Amino acid sequence: MTTPPSRLLTDLTTEEARDLIGPESVVVLPIGAIEQHGPHLPLSTDAILTDAATNALRDEPPAGVDVFFLPSLCYATSAEHRFSAGTMSLSEPTLLAVIADLADSVAALKARRFVILNGHGGNTALLRVASRQVRLKHRFLTFLMHPVLSADHGGPTGESAERGLGCHANQGETSIMLHLRPDLVRMERAVANVPDWLSEYDDIGLGGSVTFGWSAGDFGPSGVIGDPTAADPVLGAKLWDYALDRLRAGLTEIGRFEFPNSVLGVR
Amino acid sequence: MTTPPSRLLTDLTTEEARDLIGPESVVVLPIGAIEQHGPHLPLSTDAILTDAATNALRDEPPAGVDVFFLPSLCYATSAEHRFSAGTMSLSEPTLLAVIADLADSVAALKARRFVILNGHGGNTALLRVASRQVRLKHRFLTFLMHPVLSADHGGPTGESAERGLGCHANQGETSIMLHLRPDLVRMERAVANVPDWLSEYDDIGLGGSVTFGWSAGDFGPSGVIGDPTAADPVLGAKLWDYALDRLRAGLTEIGRFEFPNSVLGVR
Amino acid sequence: MTTPPSRLLTDLTTEEARDLIGPESVVVLPIGAIEQHGPHLPLSTDAILTDAATNALRDEPPAGVDVFFLPSLCYATSAEHRFSAGTMSLSEPTLLAVIADLADSVAALKARRFVILNGHGGNTALLRVASRQVRLKHRFLTFLMHPVLSADHGGPTGESAERGLGCHANQGETSIMLHLRPDLVRMERAVANVPDWLSEYDDIGLGGSVTFGWSAGDFGPSGVIGDPTAADPVLGAKLWDYALDRLRAGLTEIGRFEFPNSVLGVR
Amino acid sequence: MTTPPSRLLTDLTTEEARDLIGPESVVVLPIGAIEQHGPHLPLSTDAILTDAATNALRDEPPAGVDVFFLPSLCYATSAEHRFSAGTMSLSEPTLLAVIADLADSVAALKARRFVILNGHGGNTALLRVASRQVRLKHRFLTFLMHPVLSADHGGPTGESAERGLGCHANQGETSIMLHLRPDLVRMERAVANVPDWLSEYDDIGLGGSVTFGWSAGDFGPSGVIGDPTAADPVLGAKLWDYALDRLRAGLTEIGRFEFPNSVLGVR
Amino acid sequence: MTTPPSRLLTDLTTEEARDLIGPESVVVLPIGAIEQHGPHLPLSTDAILTDAATNALRDEPPAGVDVFFLPSLCYATSAEHRFSAGTMSLSEPTLLAVIADLADSVAALKARRFVILNGHGGNTALLRVASRQVRLKHRFLTFLMHPVLSADHGGPTGESAERGLGCHANQGETSIMLHLRPDLVRMERAVANVPDWLSEYDDIGLGGSVTFGWSAGDFGPSGVIGDPTAADPVLGAKLWDYALDRLRAGLTEIGRFEFPNSVLGVR
Amino acid sequence: MTTPPSRLLTDLTTEEARDLIGPESVVVLPIGAIEQHGPHLPLSTDAILTDAATNALRDEPPAGVDVFFLPSLCYATSAEHRFSAGTMSLSEPTLLAVIADLADSVAALKARRFVILNGHGGNTALLRVASRQVRLKHRFLTFLMHPVLSADHGGPTGESAERGLGCHANQGETSIMLHLRPDLVRMERAVANVPDWLSEYDDIGLGGSVTFGWSAGDFGPSGVIGDPTAADPVLGAKLWDYALDRLRAGLTEIGRFEFPNSVLGVR
Repeated sequence: MTTPPSRLLTDLTTEEARDLIGPESVVVLPIGAIEQHGPHLPLSTDAILTDAATNALRDEPPAGVDVFFLPSLCYATSAEHRFSAGTMSLSEPTLLAVIADLADSVAALKARRFVILNGHGGNTALLRVASRQVRLKHRFLTFLMHPVLSADHGGPTGESAERGLGCHANQGETSIMLHLRPDLVRMERAVANVPDWLSEYDDIGLGGSVTFGWSAGDFGPSGVIGDPTAADPVLGAKLWDYALDRLRAGLTEIGRFEFPNSVLGVR
Repeated sequence: MTTPPSRLLTDLTTEEARDLIGPESVVVLPIGAIEQHGPHLPLSTDAILTDAATNALRDEPPAGVDVFFLPSLCYATSAEHRFSAGTMSLSEPTLLAVIADLADSVAALKARRFVILNGHGGNTALLRVASRQVRLKHRFLTFLMHPVLSADHGGPTGESAERGLGCHANQGETSIMLHLRPDLVRMERAVANVPDWLSEYDDIGLGGSVTFGWSAGDFGPSGVIGDPTAADPVLGAKLWDYALDRLRAGLTEIGRFEFPNSVLGVR
Repeated sequence: MTTPPSRLLTDLTTEEARDLIGPESVVVLPIGAIEQHGPHLPLSTDAILTDAATNALRDEPPAGVDVFFLPSLCYATSAEHRFSAGTMSLSEPTLLAVIADLADSVAALKARRFVILNGHGGNTALLRVASRQVRLKHRFLTFLMHPVLSADHGGPTGESAERGLGCHANQGETSIMLHLRPDLVRMERAVANVPDWLSEYDDIGLGGSVTFGWSAGDFGPSGVIGDPTAADPVLGAKLWDYALDRLRAGLTEIGRFEFPNSVLGVR
Repeated sequence: MTTPPSRLLTDLTTEEARDLIGPESVVVLPIGAIEQHGPHLPLSTDAILTDAATNALRDEPPAGVDVFFLPSLCYATSAEHRFSAGTMSLSEPTLLAVIADLADSVAALKARRFVILNGHGGNTALLRVASRQVRLKHRFLTFLMHPVLSADHGGPTGESAERGLGCHANQGETSIMLHLRPDLVRMERAVANVPDWLSEYDDIGLGGSVTFGWSAGDFGPSGVIGDPTAADPVLGAKLWDYALDRLRAGLTEIGRFEFPNSVLGVR
Repeated sequence: MTTPPSRLLTDLTTEEARDLIGPESVVVLPIGAIEQHGPHLPLSTDAILTDAATNALRDEPPAGVDVFFLPSLCYATSAEHRFSAGTMSLSEPTLLAVIADLADSVAALKARRFVILNGHGGNTALLRVASRQVRLKHRFLTFLMHPVLSADHGGPTGESAERGLGCHANQGETSIMLHLRPDLVRMERAVANVPDWLSEYDDIGLGGSVTFGWSAGDFGPSGVIGDPTAADPVLGAKLWDYALDRLRAGLTEIGRFEFPNSVLGVR
Repeated sequence: MTTPPSRLLTDLTTEEARDLIGPESVVVLPIGAIEQHGPHLPLSTDAILTDAATNALRDEPPAGVDVFFLPSLCYATSAEHRFSAGTMSLSEPTLLAVIADLADSVAALKARRFVILNGHGGNTALLRVASRQVRLKHRFLTFLMHPVLSADHGGPTGESAERGLGCHANQGETSIMLHLRPDLVRMERAVANVPDWLSEYDDIGLGGSVTFGWSAGDFGPSGVIGDPTAADPVLGAKLWDYALDRLRAGLTEIGRFEFPNSVLGVR
């Protein structure tokens, strides 16, 4: 594992990309989102978090992992936020096509570990599909990881102010933004919108045995799901450090992951 | 809520479908799968479980829910099982198109609650995407539920013999088949294949913060993920009764679910 | 030709499918339809006939033919019946994609004879296209057969009550339903709707040298094309026995069909 | 019905097309094919016949029919002839898209009768699908007609030399070419290739209750299906006159065709 | 280079196409358009010019070039003219699919030089995309040429009457039509519509550093962009002779064009 | 025209985007590319130039233009560079779909001027198609502009060292990179590759009356088309200043552009 001039893959020349990226290298595609984040957070919140995580990992990659980062794709599928202006959303087939095309391009390199770093909880299901498609088509080892795993996909359900029901523009996300980009947070406009009515249901939930299709507008006009008024930058710093630790730990495991008994092999 | 001549929607005539299905009715589309289930279970295992659950719910629907069942779609996406003969798999875009077309057809009825009853854990991610698409296009209330929720989507992780790592042709699934269709189980060919090697990883797992793309063939040639040798029909009966109870409870909640503050409305 | 444990392909395990289905085996995909059938027949009429034929053939397959049946696809293209509630229709591209995906899956088996058993006359044109596509892509020998061949595709034009113009929910179809599932026939609501006005045209017809695009709604509000009031179960039994005889004879020929001079070969 | 300066629609200016084509006008889209026609006929045989028929109808349209002809689309789907060089084939989805796009364009005119004049028997099934799609989308009255209806779609089965089995580059087609374009016929290379082996089958046939998917190469290397050696120009002239008579009779009926009881209406 | 019986490729039989078209042969696909051409020119103007050029080149091909012409595709993408009746337009994906399918078909021949002769300026951008796609997929040498190159793609900007702003149904095009098909020109209805207002902009223009998306209707109701009232047949004859000279010169160069240092090779 | 908190559209909240972006606002979508740029320039060269131009315009927008910038899309279509490792290319249909989806999203705002700022000459043709599609679908005024217009689309043909034939990783582009990001230029590896052989052709050229489909690999293994060895940072600064001047002038004109006589209108 040679030290490359940069871990931003696209800083390399074509010859460097060909020569320096090898079979053990890990290629990470960060995917953000541009979507409404309530009255207090910018449209680019998910893209900002994704880029911040990517930059931190690039500046200080986990030891022993030959990791390269592709530039972020800031546009993804945000269909559930299209009810509110400024959301920029690719349709599901378009996003699958983008990832398929990029994976086809990555296949020209020697890397065989491909990671999607997903900054938008609403894309988790679609990206699991994409992750499996790339595994089956190219025989890469593929992985899906998240700076913050949303509650409706088995992630931590946030702070007590939200009764486990915060998942968009909520306390955690707002806190991290207060830590990373306080200039872009309009805390004075933050409103709480905790869907307590969900506790009327035992089986139906954001995750679990019965899920439901939703737009953020189904939770009310603000576009918030959670309680951002409880946010603070100290909590944000703590959550962010934890997130980066988890991402580094995840990348370290990705660097050594193998299927011991696969009959498919890895190309 | 009139009692219809049948709760199998397609037993009705077109006029009955128009007149008897109303705004409070719940329309359920069961989706199974045809895919390898190891050396001991038939290709149709998921389809059988889906049909058995559907028939049980149809014969004894939860009280107070005006529920109608569409015929099962037994073919779904089983890309991760195509390495083994007999798997019949629709591509992801094809399955999304089928569901979109069927939802367009349902939109000609007065029902506004649409449930996908998903018998194959491997389709959960894709069907969550579909469930959201239908909500946003038709403004139906849409739901996704499962006879058995797979471990990689937050479901119960099975029995102790499997150390939480059983998810295909495993102890639970085999037990239920021994309960429902013992004639189709070849127990003498059952082999255990528990991916204990996954415990080497803290972050990477079937579910959780870092997931990976896989074919069942990545776990070894048998196609099993779990320990079916530990199956028995008594356990199967218990699991099945529990599953039906949960499905009935889920349908009851679906029958009364509302978004109290939605800005989208329901058409 | 070994006797398999079942001729329902999906009752087999993956290993049985791999080992027991050989180059001479015939794989049948039955395709029904869910569509309005007038005021007296259920939406599932075509699916019921398709399933009944499949079950009869499976229980008593023609001697000497190593035939396996896939589970029925009950959803097909019924665009011409969408004007009336309860019709469940796949678009033409979706149905072609479904068949292409299933044929790709069948190609993992050793069988090289692939039959579509088409229960809905309205799909005949589209399925001829599909049948040719599968022949050219996979080099299977492909066949299209019908429990009842509709008048607009060269089939028998029905009984005298219909002046050769019955083709949907008509005397023949209703008679067969009275024979097979009398519990689902509402004879008291049956109405005759024979398009006698077609006899004003010599060249334009349901079949023949000039055909026209139609919805069943173009023939009037009832959705019937023919005279179901003339139906009776004795006629139904006779027609059904004839249909099964023809299907068995067809399968027998399919089992031995070869192109003696093909330059394409069969894979 | 004003007499237009030309019945070739595209000879008109945009304003003439807007003003002279009215609700009773019939718009005809001729579709040919470019495909192998054995060793003795040119690749463009179907396109030539289609153009010749169109020109004859245009020069002498049936009395009382306000008919306009679009330029021929000479490229269509000839998948079953791709085994032999020079065949130019659109895929099935491409041809459906072309017709859909052209029908969308025709919808800007006031005409409501749309005819596909199909010069290639192999496209009949696909064009029946297209004809129905256009009816349902645009509410045009749509029709499909043929200069010569092929045997596998219920047309006349040709002359005695061919025992009812001639359908490509055969006696009839070659005779008509000898009549219309003798300069392009290489009679000295004509070979007979009558698939007499088909008579071994009672149920399987080019048309009828069991059909099969085929490439012309499945009938042997020559690409001929029939007996062109029996062709002669006198027969050709007779067949051609008959064909034109039938087309004119068909157009006359198309000009007055109505659904007396349609619930769809015609836009 | 044998002299073939015809340079219209489709006049050949399949065997002639296979044997007479060799690695040095040039295959030309002419593409016209059917679209509004103002009040004075027919809808088929572009198709007429394309066919006239093709016929002239076919009758008198440039010396030493083994060139074959496919039949013209008269339907192309004319989205910017759909505001006016009679325009027949394929969508962009449909036209790309048609060309891809035809190129796939050409790949069965031995030719490796493929030329699109584009008669409609509005298709230039799309056909440059197609030309590159075919080069990359089939490794043909591909070329795009034009009877008349439109001003917005770097072509001559017309006569002084138009101040360099004529590009549709303008002086040049009308003059050529007066030369070739005076019977189809309604000079008495010709109106001038020169977009002099474009001269207010230094950077924005029909070509150049800032271009804009437009419909011909954006230039006013007549559909004309230029000054056809200044047309005359003598000018038309001169322009036409020049165009044919350039096309012959272009084809001559195409016949000997090679990439001296390509790492891709030509298949 | 209120001064917004940021001209990076995605720094705004959803409410700000709704309220501050008005009918006169101009929305710019910058599109870069990731593709081989010879042995001396990084893969991200086009993305870097696009971002640098966007940032400069955002920091100092032209006076009187209410312009907002979307985040750059760094991935575009680079099919002609896929022969060399590290190129990340979307297929043409994927890129068209991405732009269509983003334009659909922009349509939720009140802006009606939509600009694509294209940093990759190879995308010019495709983006002209996209620009027209968006104009016709959404009735936005749409524009396509370029930091540097490539020679094959009518732009300046570079410096004398390149005889007008430089268009990729050439003197101009390399000079600008030496000005903007000298740390990423490996001048010691720069090689000249001027396609002087093109001067053998009078009609065939990178632009003009006969163009050809090409991969950069068709010009030789280096991926360079031009002479980067002649680059210097002083020239780069001059070219860059000129480019920014032209972009500001272009945006100023875009801010006041109108079709004075359009029959389509602007929504």
